[in-house]
Amino acid sequence: MSTNKMNSEKTRLEHDLLGEREVPVDAYYGVQTLRAIENFKISGTTLCKYPVFIESLAITKKAAAKANLELGLLDEKIAKAIDQACDEIIAGKYHDNFGVDMIQGGAGTSTNMAANEVIANRANEILGGKKGEYKYCHPNNHVNLSQSTNDAYPTGVKIALLRNNPSLVDTLKELIDAFEKKGEEFAHVIKMGRTQLQDAVPMTLGQEFKAYAYTLRQEIAVLERQASMFLEVNMGATAIGTGINSEPEYSDKCVKHLADITGMDIKISGNLVEATQDTTDFVMYSSAVKRLAVKLSKICNDLRLLSSGPRTGLNEINLPPMQPGSSIMPGKVNPVIPEVVNQIAFKVIGNTLTVTMASEAGQLELNVMEPLMVYSIFQSVEMLKNGMAVLKERCIDGITANAERCKEMVNNSIGIVTALNPVLGYEASSKLAKEALKTGASVYDLVLEQNLLSKEELDDILKPENMTQPRKIH
Amino acid sequence: MSTNKMNSEKTRLEHDLLGEREVPVDAYYGVQTLRAIENFKISGTTLCKYPVFIESLAITKKAAAKANLELGLLDEKIAKAIDQACDEIIAGKYHDNFGVDMIQGGAGTSTNMAANEVIANRANEILGGKKGEYKYCHPNNHVNLSQSTNDAYPTGVKIALLRNNPSLVDTLKELIDAFEKKGEEFAHVIKMGRTQLQDAVPMTLGQEFKAYAYTLRQEIAVLERQASMFLEVNMGATAIGTGINSEPEYSDKCVKHLADITGMDIKISGNLVEATQDTTDFVMYSSAVKRLAVKLSKICNDLRLLSSGPRTGLNEINLPPMQPGSSIMPGKVNPVIPEVVNQIAFKVIGNTLTVTMASEAGQLELNVMEPLMVYSIFQSVEMLKNGMAVLKERCIDGITANAERCKEMVNNSIGIVTALNPVLGYEASSKLAKEALKTGASVYDLVLEQNLLSKEELDDILKPENMTQPRKIH
Amino acid sequence: MSTNKMNSEKTRLEHDLLGEREVPVDAYYGVQTLRAIENFKISGTTLCKYPVFIESLAITKKAAAKANLELGLLDEKIAKAIDQACDEIIAGKYHDNFGVDMIQGGAGTSTNMAANEVIANRANEILGGKKGEYKYCHPNNHVNLSQSTNDAYPTGVKIALLRNNPSLVDTLKELIDAFEKKGEEFAHVIKMGRTQLQDAVPMTLGQEFKAYAYTLRQEIAVLERQASMFLEVNMGATAIGTGINSEPEYSDKCVKHLADITGMDIKISGNLVEATQDTTDFVMYSSAVKRLAVKLSKICNDLRLLSSGPRTGLNEINLPPMQPGSSIMPGKVNPVIPEVVNQIAFKVIGNTLTVTMASEAGQLELNVMEPLMVYSIFQSVEMLKNGMAVLKERCIDGITANAERCKEMVNNSIGIVTALNPVLGYEASSKLAKEALKTGASVYDLVLEQNLLSKEELDDILKPENMTQPRKIH
Amino acid sequence: MSTNKMNSEKTRLEHDLLGEREVPVDAYYGVQTLRAIENFKISGTTLCKYPVFIESLAITKKAAAKANLELGLLDEKIAKAIDQACDEIIAGKYHDNFGVDMIQGGAGTSTNMAANEVIANRANEILGGKKGEYKYCHPNNHVNLSQSTNDAYPTGVKIALLRNNPSLVDTLKELIDAFEKKGEEFAHVIKMGRTQLQDAVPMTLGQEFKAYAYTLRQEIAVLERQASMFLEVNMGATAIGTGINSEPEYSDKCVKHLADITGMDIKISGNLVEATQDTTDFVMYSSAVKRLAVKLSKICNDLRLLSSGPRTGLNEINLPPMQPGSSIMPGKVNPVIPEVVNQIAFKVIGNTLTVTMASEAGQLELNVMEPLMVYSIFQSVEMLKNGMAVLKERCIDGITANAERCKEMVNNSIGIVTALNPVLGYEASSKLAKEALKTGASVYDLVLEQNLLSKEELDDILKPENMTQPRKIH
Repeated sequence: MSTNKMNSEKTRLEHDLLGEREVPVDAYYGVQTLRAIENFKISGTTLCKYPVFIESLAITKKAAAKANLELGLLDEKIAKAIDQACDEIIAGKYHDNFGVDMIQGGAGTSTNMAANEVIANRANEILGGKKGEYKYCHPNNHVNLSQSTNDAYPTGVKIALLRNNPSLVDTLKELIDAFEKKGEEFAHVIKMGRTQLQDAVPMTLGQEFKAYAYTLRQEIAVLERQASMFLEVNMGATAIGTGINSEPEYSDKCVKHLADITGMDIKISGNLVEATQDTTDFVMYSSAVKRLAVKLSKICNDLRLLSSGPRTGLNEINLPPMQPGSSIMPGKVNPVIPEVVNQIAFKVIGNTLTVTMASEAGQLELNVMEPLMVYSIFQSVEMLKNGMAVLKERCIDGITANAERCKEMVNNSIGIVTALNPVLGYEASSKLAKEALKTGASVYDLVLEQNLLSKEELDDILKPENMTQPRKIH
Repeated sequence: MSTNKMNSEKTRLEHDLLGEREVPVDAYYGVQTLRAIENFKISGTTLCKYPVFIESLAITKKAAAKANLELGLLDEKIAKAIDQACDEIIAGKYHDNFGVDMIQGGAGTSTNMAANEVIANRANEILGGKKGEYKYCHPNNHVNLSQSTNDAYPTGVKIALLRNNPSLVDTLKELIDAFEKKGEEFAHVIKMGRTQLQDAVPMTLGQEFKAYAYTLRQEIAVLERQASMFLEVNMGATAIGTGINSEPEYSDKCVKHLADITGMDIKISGNLVEATQDTTDFVMYSSAVKRLAVKLSKICNDLRLLSSGPRTGLNEINLPPMQPGSSIMPGKVNPVIPEVVNQIAFKVIGNTLTVTMASEAGQLELNVMEPLMVYSIFQSVEMLKNGMAVLKERCIDGITANAERCKEMVNNSIGIVTALNPVLGYEASSKLAKEALKTGASVYDLVLEQNLLSKEELDDILKPENMTQPRKIH
Repeated sequence: MSTNKMNSEKTRLEHDLLGEREVPVDAYYGVQTLRAIENFKISGTTLCKYPVFIESLAITKKAAAKANLELGLLDEKIAKAIDQACDEIIAGKYHDNFGVDMIQGGAGTSTNMAANEVIANRANEILGGKKGEYKYCHPNNHVNLSQSTNDAYPTGVKIALLRNNPSLVDTLKELIDAFEKKGEEFAHVIKMGRTQLQDAVPMTLGQEFKAYAYTLRQEIAVLERQASMFLEVNMGATAIGTGINSEPEYSDKCVKHLADITGMDIKISGNLVEATQDTTDFVMYSSAVKRLAVKLSKICNDLRLLSSGPRTGLNEINLPPMQPGSSIMPGKVNPVIPEVVNQIAFKVIGNTLTVTMASEAGQLELNVMEPLMVYSIFQSVEMLKNGMAVLKERCIDGITANAERCKEMVNNSIGIVTALNPVLGYEASSKLAKEALKTGASVYDLVLEQNLLSKEELDDILKPENMTQPRKIH
Repeated sequence: MSTNKMNSEKTRLEHDLLGEREVPVDAYYGVQTLRAIENFKISGTTLCKYPVFIESLAITKKAAAKANLELGLLDEKIAKAIDQACDEIIAGKYHDNFGVDMIQGGAGTSTNMAANEVIANRANEILGGKKGEYKYCHPNNHVNLSQSTNDAYPTGVKIALLRNNPSLVDTLKELIDAFEKKGEEFAHVIKMGRTQLQDAVPMTLGQEFKAYAYTLRQEIAVLERQASMFLEVNMGATAIGTGINSEPEYSDKCVKHLADITGMDIKISGNLVEATQDTTDFVMYSSAVKRLAVKLSKICNDLRLLSSGPRTGLNEINLPPMQPGSSIMPGKVNPVIPEVVNQIAFKVIGNTLTVTMASEAGQLELNVMEPLMVYSIFQSVEMLKNGMAVLKERCIDGITANAERCKEMVNNSIGIVTALNPVLGYEASSKLAKEALKTGASVYDLVLEQNLLSKEELDDILKPENMTQPRKIH
């Protein structure tokens, strides 16, 4: 009996369709969230890890309450209490009540109900009631009014991804700047370009780093364009897009409030049945994220190639040492930062496949795999942000060039023969190339030895600025 | 001796850096193409399979020749001969000379040299010479002038994909129209919507098919947007983007001619070093193609669900029978067309992964895996076109609805209880739902039995048009 | 000054190749682990999440110390201290010292050094010294003696995966038993089999569930076979497999101790250079894990199909309700558990791609992406274990059959006409099938109506036990 | 009228469930194959491309006929005619009658019916009838007797893959031998090993190539083990594994004949319901094929790294030149053969994903996506065979070593300091390493300069044979 009493002090009773359950007395979440926490012990990563997601759910609920108020569907007092509860969540309170796993069955119902329950319980408190009573404000009847999981959840998700994208872009921009700076710094370091890992023709190290900056800069627009697809939401679709149990003006009103609250150009989808079942905007956004990952991985592969050595590799650049590289080889330092970015890229590509498969698995009026897509995208974005920040701070910023080494390789190369083509012709150039390769001589010496060009002519042709940009040939 | 003579009549001698080889005397291709054909017996699919690709290479060469002529780098007679040879290729001649495998090492050099050799040999004929002599027009010196494989090849590829995209879009449009028509036809077939394969709320079969039309219609813009990224080319980049051996005005002139010839808004990339090494536009275009595949696969899964039965499935629609379905079960007919589209989608998704991995494998100034990306994209587009055409003609056009069956399932459903929510309240509705499920009774009968609503009221609420769109509740 | 003092009380100074750093005074880890924690803030998941991994690193170090002792390379006192420190780690102490991110550059050096440092610091304590002094026992000179990250790390990983596999298999076995029991329970529930979602021929629900049990049972051997590949380790390979700085007998001795400690048949690889660079055993094990995921996903798709309804789906079985299914539709219950298992499967398939790409990215004597492979595999196994446990307890165990509904669908089906083939012939059977489909009549009634067979004959043919197994036809 | 007559001379009329169609008069295939050819114009690759597949279908039909004969279900004359027709197909006749696309809906029914029709028509001829009459032998009643597509098709597929695997293995073995030979040839070429692209410790080039041989040799067993899973077939399962319309002894008899005809240890699956729906043996075999692809890709990446240069890369080995490498750079030769193998690998990995998704898409008693799996596997195996043959003949066999260059890099390296560890200690070694790196001096010279060791001692330690294998340290 005393046990019961103690229990009853620590917990409160709630019930739903399936019966009664004891909920921790201080919890803002309710019985349905409790069941969901128990049902889905899957990834160990809960909604708590992504505050922007929790906040965006609250934004969605807030907009719905405002629309319901305007339509006379919700009493003003309740509407205000919901509004305040949402604001508190947006301000970061109660996040620990969202302990549901990111991977969950039910197409996001558990996430939606967690928001409904936390908001309802807080609203009850505001209205003078106690948690779990739902006397003044009910999770389904009031907080979820005119909504279904199938419109509120994806809308919350999309707002979250929209609000999350700028932080990815900002980190990206800092990385771009770092590459750009190095591009300036290395503008006069002449080096050999390589195609297919074979000696090609000269370029500057600055051109190489500016190309990295340029290629990454394209991704800002790509990410923003794909994210902008999330501006179309399906509030008012309710269960399957037909809008059952919502009023004709609700959609527009709700979306207008969403736009007001977020300051973003949120609009209603052109076909709510379609919008409720289609998830390919997640596929495209994650493909855009994948594209960034592919670029980063290629760049990091290059950095590892260019810094290979120090004695038996290309050794054109030095990465700043971040940690001793070997437990057995004294003095070894490894390119650990680019290496970790490569691994992030592979994880992101795997996640994109996961999103693709989840999207393909939609059936009829809904895609139940949406929580997995959301989790995978958040994870990819998070890891890319971490990776890019680390790459900038612990690698790119500290790169130095081995200008002498770079220059020697140009002078020693056979590839510069390409620049002689227009004056000596292809046949003579080929002959030179073969002889250089066979004898080990330098092309420069051979040209002078054979009196093919004067030293002045030759030096002019082989001037770095003449070989690293187009020039008038005739 | 006579054998030798016969041989010498059937072949001609050509040589390159590696030595001499006998080339079939009638071949327009030359020694380098011959070596490539021998080196790359890989997929069994040659350039011949994609005429639009061969033609686009010729377009590229034609534009380069025009630019070279303007710059005074190419003699007018030779330029005209090249121009004519290119026109003939664009008209479909000599395609069988492009027998190189689509999967090839060398970053497309073999494809570029095939174009150079075929054009040079034809130009020689035009100028009064013989194949293989290269007396008047040389593959490298004239046809490839101011170019490298590393700019001419990707430019040809991009023009090919740009010119190929409209045929994909056209096939897609016909499919959309077919869905749209069925949407009209089925506008009044009331049926149950399903979420998570569980009974949800009513909708019309027309809404379902219109959603398919709508979702596919979005793909037109998605495909065109991604294809438009190919409008940026890197002519004048030459070997690594530095423009070595090209004149300063060449890029702009060449691109202008490309725009003239193709009628497309082709422009020069903002950073040629970047443009020469980056291949992620292929990743994004193939991701857009993948997105279309994902949507088609989802729709085909739905079609197979909706037509399941005839007696023990959903049986809401009938797909037109295309072939007997079983070697053992008399009378069985299977949804073979949607099934084949599902398989195409899986192949396309696999191809997108292939493109992604190939793109990630770029190194320094070039990505040598480009031929694989090109092949995978062409293959995906080709299969999707085939699949969508077959889906339209042999499936969608002939779909009929089992309207009675659909209606019965609505009437018999528990899900319509949702529509009673606003009038009976959530609690009473839940009670009704439980009782219906337990007793097997219909919700309709229960409501009348228990005098919860009059027949008129009930019929009004449950009118199809009232359940399948938003309505004023209060 | 007092701040400094306070600092010096909270931290201790350590140094490495890159200089000095302050380490928390109570930490068992050292300067290199500290750097790694700072360098790799990537996934948020640290080694701590996988205790079996930490323990297996300690097992590896313990075996190495024993081998070094036998070879006279390590002083007995130090060897014993290392041994005790390892035992304490194996017993679960100090796990929180392994705060390095699972995704890390450096090919596992940070993980290996964390083990070396924690063990060395604990050994120092045992030998009477203080943390950070390394006076008695040095991370590199003693704990890592005769080792490199490149042999100790993959060996630790493999032992961890070997020790982890049985828990996956055990959870799998419990799931198999649950399916098996349902197979027994449903042995006499006759139902229609479906191919391509079209009505096929009768079977029992028991056969269906026994097939699930049978197919999953195959995976025990598949997983164990692939895991057994990890029995081959490369201790003694040191840096690149040549065994530099290890003694000829060391490999064999070390592996013998590993076998003794683990009770597993651990053996040395046949080519240590190969063993140090190859990572495809991870690819195959993760492919085996993927195969299990594919099977589970297919089964869960089936469960969702079979339980679809309740009124407008197949409705052959009932899954136990786990939570209310809808925030808008009263009484709706969704198959949330199978749904979450589907999502796990997609995540596992994505992870397998990640492992594949990481494995392909190996270069020359080492694959630096191994930490990512390890993380992805651990994550997949963990989620599958969680998913299978939940699937058993919260779904399979509680499934009930709708036997009447199943039987009616058989009786009402056209597919049973297949059983009449041998007696009526294919032509007559086809005619019957067509007539039934057209008129809506049952095959059973038609046969009797048309006096094609007597009721006794017909009932005999259509007996469940006669239609659900081979039988003598003539 | 004359047109009609001409038509009637060129075609014959056949009918099936869907009605009448004109079939080319000389065709051995019939109306169902005709429909399938028309329905599935998808990939452009027909069954004809894989003769081993067509032959294996005939083997399956032959075994079934023999079993049916023994059971008294098939008249001896008909059985013999079927037997002869099958033998003729196995001998390579009539392959051009199998013009159905490899990607097809219907779960292989079209492929099965093509075999049934071709065999039946040929058997009719043998028995004195004409094509299309099916008077003596009927595709369904006789050739397909006791079978369904759902057992005959996968059995044919599995036999085909079993018979195809040795050719893959044989090509692999030749490649292994090529690496092995180079391993011998380069046994005394001392070079630097590299981890993470950074200088590590010395090894021989022979060790490097022997590791390639060793790692590939493991794949023989892996492929054979996975292929051996195909030995389990499901003949007698008929439609869904319950064996409806087959006699109890049929399975065993049929399988025994399959074993006799093929000489392979073919056996019946332990659960035919499971065997009819499960396709994960295709997933595992394709994962094994993928593993081989991953290994080949890694090796080819290495070959491209090791041969990079000639002047600004590693330049340790020379690949035989296969074709001129550049249209603009005279004398450039590229590693085109490894490059094409990398691309094959990416295609194979994409195909494995395709197989995985197809396998996951199975539903209830059948997986309708099997044709796609079969196609993807055949394509992967074919391309890998082509790639490995080309790699051996046009690359590995002709590789030469730059022994002097390799040796110089060892002497010039800092990494050899690792070998001094045991005699000088870690601290002194680290100091040496830093000094060498800073001053550019060689470790060798520094040791002598500083009198740390005598020349004799130093030369002994740095002897290649002492640095490239374990040695007694004390």
